[in-house]
Amino acid sequence: MAEKERLSADERRKQIIRIATEFFAEKGFAGTRTREIADMAGISETLIFQHFKSKEELYREILLENLAHHPLQPEIEHYESLNDDLTVFHTTAAHIVRNMNNPSLIRLFLYGVLENPQLLMLSEKRDHTGIQRHLANYIQKRIDDGAFIQTNASLAAQSFIYSVSMFCLQRVLAETTQGDSANGFIKNLVQIYINGLIK
Amino acid sequence: MAEKERLSADERRKQIIRIATEFFAEKGFAGTRTREIADMAGISETLIFQHFKSKEELYREILLENLAHHPLQPEIEHYESLNDDLTVFHTTAAHIVRNMNNPSLIRLFLYGVLENPQLLMLSEKRDHTGIQRHLANYIQKRIDDGAFIQTNASLAAQSFIYSVSMFCLQRVLAETTQGDSANGFIKNLVQIYINGLIK
Repeated sequence: MAEKERLSADERRKQIIRIATEFFAEKGFAGTRTREIADMAGISETLIFQHFKSKEELYREILLENLAHHPLQPEIEHYESLNDDLTVFHTTAAHIVRNMNNPSLIRLFLYGVLENPQLLMLSEKRDHTGIQRHLANYIQKRIDDGAFIQTNASLAAQSFIYSVSMFCLQRVLAETTQGDSANGFIKNLVQIYINGLIK
Repeated sequence: MAEKERLSADERRKQIIRIATEFFAEKGFAGTRTREIADMAGISETLIFQHFKSKEELYREILLENLAHHPLQPEIEHYESLNDDLTVFHTTAAHIVRNMNNPSLIRLFLYGVLENPQLLMLSEKRDHTGIQRHLANYIQKRIDDGAFIQTNASLAAQSFIYSVSMFCLQRVLAETTQGDSANGFIKNLVQIYINGLIK
């Protein structure tokens, strides 16, 4: 309890979020008790509820704080302006891998989606749909330029991003993050998409 | 209880599996009690354990009975022998969509993977890894023929199948199975892969 005194409100909030993330990832939303989180933090449940109105709010805050934390735009717009297709696709894929690199968060997110599908909407709005729209716009521009074949830009962006997302998901679920290299996968995928899309 | 008398052992087994699938899909493995399954079936827990040694065995039987139920080989080998690349890729994708068309099973499977990652191994051995290896062999054959570009056949098959799998997963999780058409998605994806792989 000595530690309790030392943390500022902001540090306490971060500590609760860190511990809650591990519990939700391990046991799901329904399977986690705020009492367990409090015990692990060495604080009272009341103190948790001073920071977060409810278990639901705590869960939502974890998702909101962690989704789309790394903005893609500034990095990619330079390559887009150069029509550097290879780097645009490669950067997009690497961005998704970076965003999906936290097994606890992916597990927490999947549990949330199974237990409460609305959570997927929340995250879509903030994360992959944005990346997908961005890539779709770039592909459409390259079609209009006459550089890419006539195709549905939105579907092409979707299938590319789905492939990378599944790669990340699979790594987390199979617990083999070390095993196969994301680089090899991405390089091969990008090669096929560029070859497939360029006239 | 009148109904209890009427079912044969095989019918009873199927009834238990059907009801258990819905419970596991809705509440996960840990969140489901065999008592609930028994109550819903109008039978005793003892009768469940006459058919399945434990809740674990019931769960495993559901997975085993449902994975890889539709064999791909006979359908696809004809097109492979004709080097009909478009139809080979299209049939492979349609096969995955057909296999992943049951939301309850996908939910049950995802819960299982979160709660117990070894379950993923089990299913991989019986299902998508087989399809993936099959497609990889075909791509390698077409590379050796000089019809496809030099690329890693195994990675190309993997990324194609991951994209289709994520499409199915996304539909189930977002509960929009009606919404967007798998056909449009597959057609676009296959176009890109064929264009991308053919010399």
